[in-house]
Amino acid sequence: MPGLLIIAHAPLASALRAVALHAFPEASEAVAALDVPSDMSPSQIESEARALLAQVRRPQVLVLADVFGATPCNVAQRLADGRDVRLVAGVNVPMLWRAIAYRDVPLDELVDRALTGAGQGVLAAASSRPQNQASKAPPHEEVDRHHQQ
Amino acid sequence: MPGLLIIAHAPLASALRAVALHAFPEASEAVAALDVPSDMSPSQIESEARALLAQVRRPQVLVLADVFGATPCNVAQRLADGRDVRLVAGVNVPMLWRAIAYRDVPLDELVDRALTGAGQGVLAAASSRPQNQASKAPPHEEVDRHHQQ
Repeated sequence: MPGLLIIAHAPLASALRAVALHAFPEASEAVAALDVPSDMSPSQIESEARALLAQVRRPQVLVLADVFGATPCNVAQRLADGRDVRLVAGVNVPMLWRAIAYRDVPLDELVDRALTGAGQGVLAAASSRPQNQASKAPPHEEVDRHHQQ
Repeated sequence: MPGLLIIAHAPLASALRAVALHAFPEASEAVAALDVPSDMSPSQIESEARALLAQVRRPQVLVLADVFGATPCNVAQRLADGRDVRLVAGVNVPMLWRAIAYRDVPLDELVDRALTGAGQGVLAAASSRPQNQASKAPPHEEVDRHHQQ
């Protein structure tokens, strides 16, 4: 069962971990979070991230970063070895919940599940008001219709 | 210029707002956040959300929720009127930064920008190690290649 490490601009990583454990309290030991303050040096971030990585390694870890191209993700790329430590970016709650729900699958499949969960969770939610008759449609149709407009 | 209201499980909304304002400190008055504790009633959530909505209404608002189908998003659907208040779910930092960066565009376009930004930000980041030769590819190619596997 892979562990999870969330790495993000402070205080987002610990906030995401709190929301994750609200839904999956039993996953507490498998999910670590590193909040990266703006004044933390890349070498310090890497050092703290490696310590957390060692804590949650089982022996594989999925690292979830907030934004590709920003410092937390850039440092996280140094941790990813393409085999036992994989990295995904753009973490949102659907990605995180999906990653925890499927944390018993092999790491490659977990990466797929996390990405798919994140993407499916991004949608324009319909209004519940009468002027928007789309409100009863399921979420995926909402997304598709939105992008076809 | 539409205002933004982030509504999410506590303490995620305020954490996302902090990360947003780290990148866009000038947008402070245009971005509100409502942290929803697990013991807050839907009517109380709605009441607090409406108060924040009034604060950031300019006269339009984009509401960003963490997870479609969960309580914060369900209550946010009551606020969305399909015209001046629109709702998107699955908020991540790329969505948020994109929404703030483009907050001067009309609300319909802002919804598009937010959804596109969120989706493009979800990707498997390549390893920087030699065994993964994909590390120099741009993010979109990363995502596409990943999903083609």
